[in-house]
Amino acid sequence: MLYIIGLGLADELDVSVKGLEVIRRAERVYLEAYTAVLLVDQQQLERYYGRPVIIADRETVESHSDDILADAHEKDVAFLVVGDPFSATTHTDLALRCRQHDPPIPTRTLPNASILTAVGATGLSLYTFGQTVSMVFFTDNWRPSSFYDRVAENAGLGLHTLVLLDIKVKEPDLKAMARGKIVYEAPRFMTVAQCASQMLDVEEERKQGICGQDRLAVGVARLGSENQAIVAGTLEELAEADLGKPLHSLVLCGRKMHEMEWEYVREFAMDQDKFDRIWRADYAGKG
Amino acid sequence: MLYIIGLGLADELDVSVKGLEVIRRAERVYLEAYTAVLLVDQQQLERYYGRPVIIADRETVESHSDDILADAHEKDVAFLVVGDPFSATTHTDLALRCRQHDPPIPTRTLPNASILTAVGATGLSLYTFGQTVSMVFFTDNWRPSSFYDRVAENAGLGLHTLVLLDIKVKEPDLKAMARGKIVYEAPRFMTVAQCASQMLDVEEERKQGICGQDRLAVGVARLGSENQAIVAGTLEELAEADLGKPLHSLVLCGRKMHEMEWEYVREFAMDQDKFDRIWRADYAGKG
Repeated sequence: MLYIIGLGLADELDVSVKGLEVIRRAERVYLEAYTAVLLVDQQQLERYYGRPVIIADRETVESHSDDILADAHEKDVAFLVVGDPFSATTHTDLALRCRQHDPPIPTRTLPNASILTAVGATGLSLYTFGQTVSMVFFTDNWRPSSFYDRVAENAGLGLHTLVLLDIKVKEPDLKAMARGKIVYEAPRFMTVAQCASQMLDVEEERKQGICGQDRLAVGVARLGSENQAIVAGTLEELAEADLGKPLHSLVLCGRKMHEMEWEYVREFAMDQDKFDRIWRADYAGKG
Repeated sequence: MLYIIGLGLADELDVSVKGLEVIRRAERVYLEAYTAVLLVDQQQLERYYGRPVIIADRETVESHSDDILADAHEKDVAFLVVGDPFSATTHTDLALRCRQHDPPIPTRTLPNASILTAVGATGLSLYTFGQTVSMVFFTDNWRPSSFYDRVAENAGLGLHTLVLLDIKVKEPDLKAMARGKIVYEAPRFMTVAQCASQMLDVEEERKQGICGQDRLAVGVARLGSENQAIVAGTLEELAEADLGKPLHSLVLCGRKMHEMEWEYVREFAMDQDKFDRIWRADYAGKG
C-alpha cells in the first residue's frame, strides 16, 4: 500500500495521529520536497519519527517513481507531502501510476491542513474565494501573466484570489553546469512583497484595473505556526512589507468582501485608516 | 488562550499530534457539533482523549459563547471543530469575540484537513474549482435557488463547483413544541442523490443548462476514512446513486475538466462508456 500522507503546514507535530502511526511502521518513508517545505528540517522530522526520511525531489517523483513504488504492492510505503496531498497535482499523478502498476498498488490518502483553507485565518470567507492561482519568479525574458486572466475572472465575480508563491529548491546552477559541474542554487522562496510588486508590474502592462496599487490584499506567512504573520494593505503597501521567513502567500481581495470579513481583516492593516477608507469606497456593498 | 482545533474528517485519530497535546491539557474541551460531524461518536472521542467533551450546539456557540470563553484569558480552553476551523464562518465570529473580550482572549488556530481540499481525492484539480456553495434541504415552501447563480458563475468560467450538503442536528420538532414539549428530530444528512435531485428540479425551473440531467458530477462520501466512496456520473445517474452513510458532498464538473482529471475520475464512473462519451462531446477542450 502506498500511503500519501499530508504533513500539515508548520512542523513535525502537525501530522495526524493516524499518519504518524503509518510513518512509524512503513517500510520506507519519502518526503516530497519541491512543491512546498515545512518550517523544520529533515533531521528534526527524522528525530521525531524515529525513522530515516528519503528526500524525493522533482526528478525522483516524476521520472523515477518506480524506486518509490518498488514492493509497494506488498509492503507499506509512506510518501509525505507538506500541506494536503491533493493540493499539488503531482500526487494525483503518482496515485494514477499506482493504479496502472502491474500488479496494481493500493493507495490511501491521509488528508491534512492546506494553505487553501488555512488562509481562512485572515478572516476572509472561504466561500468567497474563486480559483487559486500561482505566481512564478519573473526573469528578464519570462514574465508569464496568465495569472492575470484568472484573477480578472475572479474579480469579475467579486471573489478573492489566493495566490500561491513560487519556491525554487534544488535548481541547477546553469553557469556551473556549463563548466561541467553539477551545483545547485541556494533555495529561494517568493515573498509577499515580490508577489505584490510583480502584480503591479503586470497591471502596468495590462491596465484592466485588476491589481493596481490601491487594490486591497492580505499577505500571510508561516500560517498555522506559532509565529504566523498576517498583514493587510494595498498592493502598493504590501510591495514594501516584510513578513519574514517563508512560506508566504497572498490574497487579492474581491469586491464582495463582506462587513464581517472587513471587521476581522482590518486588525491586520498596515494603515488602518487607509484600509477602512478604501474598503468603504470601493468594496462595501459593491460585490 | 482559546485553541480552535481542527479534527479532520473521519475519526479520533485524524487530530494532529499538536492538537491532541492541547486537548489533553486544556481546562475544558468543547466540540462544535452542528456544522459537521465526525464519523465516530462523542464517547469514542472522550475515551481516546481521556477527557470529557462538552457538546456545543448552535445556540451555545452563537448565544452563550461567554460560557465557552469563561476564564479563557488565563486558562487554556479547547474548541474542537470537525474539518478545518475556518471552513465555517461561525468560528471566525468566535475568534472575533475573543478579540473584543475584556480582557482580550488570545486565540490560536490549529488547521486540519477540510472537505474543501480532501475533495481532490476525486482526481479533479483543486485549481479548477470556483466558489463553494451550500445546498439546503428543500421544503414545500422553501426552495432557495441562490446556489444556482453561484454554480452558473463558476460554469461560465468552466470551473468545478463543490456543493456542501445540509445537515440537521438537534432540530426542534415543531409539532411537539406546539404541544408544549421540547423534542428534537432525529439527525438528518443530505445525500448525494437528494442533492442531485434538487439540482435537477431547479434546472427544470431556471432552464439555463447549468445542472441538467446530462451534466457530469462526482459524489463523495466519508472522504478521508477507510471506507470512503467516490461515484462519478451524470446528475441523472447520481440522483439514483446510494453512497451509504454520511457525510456526503457533490462536485459539479466544469467544462475545463482536463484530460488528466478525466483519466482519474472515469475510474469512479457508474457507466464508464457514457461518462467518456459525454466528456468527449461536452467537456474535452471546451474549457
